[in-house]
Amino acid sequence: MISVVILGAGNVATHLFKAFYKAENIVVNQWFNRTLKSIDFYKNMVDVTDSLSSLKPADIYIIAVSDDAIMKLSEQLPFENKLVVHTSGSVGLYDLDKKNHRGVFYPLQTFSKDATIGFENVPICIETANKNDFKTLKLLAESINSKSYRVNSEQRSALHLAAVFVNNFTNQLYRIGHEITESTSTEFDILKPLILETANKIQNLSPFMAQTGPAKRNDKKTIKKHLKKLEGSPHKAIYEMLTNSIQKTHGRKKL
Amino acid sequence: MISVVILGAGNVATHLFKAFYKAENIVVNQWFNRTLKSIDFYKNMVDVTDSLSSLKPADIYIIAVSDDAIMKLSEQLPFENKLVVHTSGSVGLYDLDKKNHRGVFYPLQTFSKDATIGFENVPICIETANKNDFKTLKLLAESINSKSYRVNSEQRSALHLAAVFVNNFTNQLYRIGHEITESTSTEFDILKPLILETANKIQNLSPFMAQTGPAKRNDKKTIKKHLKKLEGSPHKAIYEMLTNSIQKTHGRKKL
Repeated sequence: MISVVILGAGNVATHLFKAFYKAENIVVNQWFNRTLKSIDFYKNMVDVTDSLSSLKPADIYIIAVSDDAIMKLSEQLPFENKLVVHTSGSVGLYDLDKKNHRGVFYPLQTFSKDATIGFENVPICIETANKNDFKTLKLLAESINSKSYRVNSEQRSALHLAAVFVNNFTNQLYRIGHEITESTSTEFDILKPLILETANKIQNLSPFMAQTGPAKRNDKKTIKKHLKKLEGSPHKAIYEMLTNSIQKTHGRKKL
Repeated sequence: MISVVILGAGNVATHLFKAFYKAENIVVNQWFNRTLKSIDFYKNMVDVTDSLSSLKPADIYIIAVSDDAIMKLSEQLPFENKLVVHTSGSVGLYDLDKKNHRGVFYPLQTFSKDATIGFENVPICIETANKNDFKTLKLLAESINSKSYRVNSEQRSALHLAAVFVNNFTNQLYRIGHEITESTSTEFDILKPLILETANKIQNLSPFMAQTGPAKRNDKKTIKKHLKKLEGSPHKAIYEMLTNSIQKTHGRKKL
């Protein structure tokens, strides 16, 4: 049995709590948040507190608060030599106070308040200073059916940056698609199967191999037509830049 | 029963042939291609020909060749007053020769040579000059379990442009994610569940509502860290441009 204490009440904290609560060999000893109101809803399931001085013993303390608040919270913990981890993709391992064993338990996934996500679809990137702590966190990941990966700081930071490209920036391309269809009163729904298939395709094919379209083919006529349609739009520069990026990747000349 | 003749042997032609062949109320009377070699494999399933003069009668002639070849092939057809459609997102309806009824049967999906795709996941955008032809094409789409949408030329061209953003450009962002992870010997596989979830999320949520991340939050510290990591990389300008685009969409100030 692994015992944990969760600190924080955001999306990651809440999704972790639900997964831990369901897991057979994990017990959540306590859930801390600065304001009890955010976690009050769960008080029949778990001991909730807003006081650091009354934190209970546990095998792992999981700090799932905003990046800027991690360091300070770790300093304020009133104990030593325990395993304390944060869940951030971009905060350093050594930003955690050194009085405790330090680790990172970074779930690489996008969490929404409402959407439930099975942790079998959440890879956990684990970073620790020593091997035993790694084993403990690996077991924690396995207990919620997550695949875990041992990464170093550089790799975690690369993953965090790459995630911005494949998640936030991709979503913004969906948004631009939405704007373009809306401008002619066309249903955005028509694009949804294509969006899903684009993501599905690279599950078994490298993005390099999966590329298609006018930029890859260097179909100048279509590219010209598209640029003309985008005249005066802020999306034109994005079209040009990503077309150039594709052509560079696939050995075509620049626009 | 709807009878069709397919002209062309690319990915779209081949996927359509397979779907038509399986459909109960569609018969493929003939498959034409300039070089028989590309369709020779199917000669036990369908009559194949490389001669336009020996084209058989059918309800619908489907021209699924490259954009640049559509107009000329439609001119060379040795018959009149038949329903002739192309499958392109960007070629005009009136680029087809006017001696026949003209239509567009545009499957908005990404087709690979090897990957099989169920046509229930392929929306068909239909454009015709008259209502009866629309009904015929709608029935054809239904017969392969596709959802069909009536669109005009402007809407089809908007969809084609939007598809470049959500498919080709998105795939290039996946590629950039791949490059970033590879540069630190990190497994790209770790990003795959996130890529899938990003596409899944907007099936029921608008891309506007689905947005998260440092650009949306205006998390300057993280953005600065990312830009520093990208120093000297061609991906830096893409990061800046898409961050600005997100901030413009969500009412943040520019970088």
